[in-house]
Amino acid sequence: MKRRDFMTAASLGAVGVAVAGCSQQSEKECSQVVKPEEKNTIHWKMVTTWPKNFPGLGTAPERFAKNVKIMSNGRLEIKVYGAGELVPALEVFDAVSNGTAEMGHGAAYYWKGKSAAAQFFAAVPFGFNAQEMNSWLHYGGGQELWDEVYAPFNLKPFAGGNTGVQMAGWFNKKIESTEDLKGLKMRIPGLGGEVLKRLGGVPVNIPGGELFTALQTGAIDATEWVGPYNDLAFGLYKAAKYYYYPGWHEPGTTLEVIINKKALESLPADLQEIVKQAVRASNQDMLDEYTARNNSALEQLVHKYNVTLLRLPDDVLKKLKDTSEVVVGEIAETNELTKRIYASFVQFAKQVKDYHKISEQAYYETRAL
Amino acid sequence: MKRRDFMTAASLGAVGVAVAGCSQQSEKECSQVVKPEEKNTIHWKMVTTWPKNFPGLGTAPERFAKNVKIMSNGRLEIKVYGAGELVPALEVFDAVSNGTAEMGHGAAYYWKGKSAAAQFFAAVPFGFNAQEMNSWLHYGGGQELWDEVYAPFNLKPFAGGNTGVQMAGWFNKKIESTEDLKGLKMRIPGLGGEVLKRLGGVPVNIPGGELFTALQTGAIDATEWVGPYNDLAFGLYKAAKYYYYPGWHEPGTTLEVIINKKALESLPADLQEIVKQAVRASNQDMLDEYTARNNSALEQLVHKYNVTLLRLPDDVLKKLKDTSEVVVGEIAETNELTKRIYASFVQFAKQVKDYHKISEQAYYETRAL
Repeated sequence: MKRRDFMTAASLGAVGVAVAGCSQQSEKECSQVVKPEEKNTIHWKMVTTWPKNFPGLGTAPERFAKNVKIMSNGRLEIKVYGAGELVPALEVFDAVSNGTAEMGHGAAYYWKGKSAAAQFFAAVPFGFNAQEMNSWLHYGGGQELWDEVYAPFNLKPFAGGNTGVQMAGWFNKKIESTEDLKGLKMRIPGLGGEVLKRLGGVPVNIPGGELFTALQTGAIDATEWVGPYNDLAFGLYKAAKYYYYPGWHEPGTTLEVIINKKALESLPADLQEIVKQAVRASNQDMLDEYTARNNSALEQLVHKYNVTLLRLPDDVLKKLKDTSEVVVGEIAETNELTKRIYASFVQFAKQVKDYHKISEQAYYETRAL
Repeated sequence: MKRRDFMTAASLGAVGVAVAGCSQQSEKECSQVVKPEEKNTIHWKMVTTWPKNFPGLGTAPERFAKNVKIMSNGRLEIKVYGAGELVPALEVFDAVSNGTAEMGHGAAYYWKGKSAAAQFFAAVPFGFNAQEMNSWLHYGGGQELWDEVYAPFNLKPFAGGNTGVQMAGWFNKKIESTEDLKGLKMRIPGLGGEVLKRLGGVPVNIPGGELFTALQTGAIDATEWVGPYNDLAFGLYKAAKYYYYPGWHEPGTTLEVIINKKALESLPADLQEIVKQAVRASNQDMLDEYTARNNSALEQLVHKYNVTLLRLPDDVLKKLKDTSEVVVGEIAETNELTKRIYASFVQFAKQVKDYHKISEQAYYETRAL
């Protein structure tokens, strides 16, 4: 799922909502509600690439803001804006970079136009799953590289949520060999779309709100979205025959929190740490929520709506994997920084693949015996 | 790995270390170092079941305490005690329950003598991995049940770290069929040990510090410990021929933070939330650290020390799985509370197995093509 998907869905009516505590109240009302300790309240704006309260992706920033308010005893109040409320989804990066908002919530692959290197920090086809990404960022040198990518933009990035392994998508055409990818009109943006294109497919970009109709009218043959929880809510099962897995193109999409560096540094040390730790907690919380809600949604899709689950054939996955390696390798050639990030990514990927093969993967297989 | 393993390793010399800020200084020195805002500092003790700074398990609580100090601007200072420094490892639960210490760090399976139900919240053979446990606790009703188990002891529990899927262990005897488990002298405590016993094995309990010698002298045929990172540090590869996987008996061991309920409630709301969010962040941080350090340690074990990695045979794993289900089912029969926990556990396990089969598991398999 990508940024532009939300653009039509986003509320456009509330641009320019006043932020400061009292600006919508009369002077008298305001003096009555403001308690003495609130005089020093710092007000921050957090712009997001999601519609207000979009399940999972949009509810996480709201929960984060609430936690920070309690942890700071009301000294830091963060108001969360849905896409289009203060700035359009596409402008979240710039808005935080230039200080229009102090914080943002989105995903790094949206900003490849700013820096090709950003694509390594959201979802790489056949790259890290959630556990691997978190480990690479926090104990494998990934965070330092991400900092370096965003520093010229006056931004400090953090992992701010994860969807887990996504689904390959909803298809009205059966995929039995790589031949079936040829001419396949599929809504699949970003690196996944590029991989499909190399294999003869026709990647198209359609906003989330239009997916259902596009599938139903045959304007597209297939679409990826997120996973059972978000897909069920969009009713995509009513417009497509097959639900394919696994989400090779987004194996653990990392959402990001970005903070204007000057704004962050202007906070006292305790509030800085409160924000950082709350982001870290929020990063895990979103994955916990997606896992539980995807469980239930999958059960409904299969048992209530009789959705047909299909695994992409091995030879198709193998071809997608080989092609993904080529596409990702090309990003590495962009500049000196992307080369270094790619080297770190590849080295950690080799190690963690070996380790997870005998731990997480072997355990899943054992449980299925 | 279990509690008693640390008892001989733990430092026993520092019992009764003074805690309050000034108690080890003269009156005059004290007045010089205490800054005005520190007059209201709350001092907490955190007792742990690990030797001071034990890699991964013991370093996590130290990092947590440091974070809380910064987030609270020094208003809450938590001093971390290794096993045996203030109370022995085995007495952490009681010490926090009765208020000797405000907090503790350990693992719930240590407290099965207090409540059989506790065993569901650390590691269940063929149960949840880390991601699944976190999701069950935070979005599947698990936390509420855990709260109920610990409430009679005046304790509030939290997930406070995870090792990920552990290893099956170090063996000097090759396991080619379930016949080979008969008479196998293996150091494997808890539920895993009970499962081995039902299959004719001889589970023994040996402290961690004695494992190396016990393996080398043939006093035991095999031992489990944690995973590559901790196992490498103990040098177990020098005393055993085979390193078996996967850790069917501990597929994602959850460490716990326990807090004395009255102590927690006596904190102002902001400090309560700071503690909670810092624990949540710490819970993820330990898994991130274990993943990265296990990667490197495994590489060293295999490539530098030529360790032979072996997967337990399918029929052995199947038998271990069937027997585990019987053993865990028996705990469920203990009382009304264990019945309810088991029901919640089983229902969530069914859903998450179905979902992870087409997401995480399918992705791992795809990547290995």
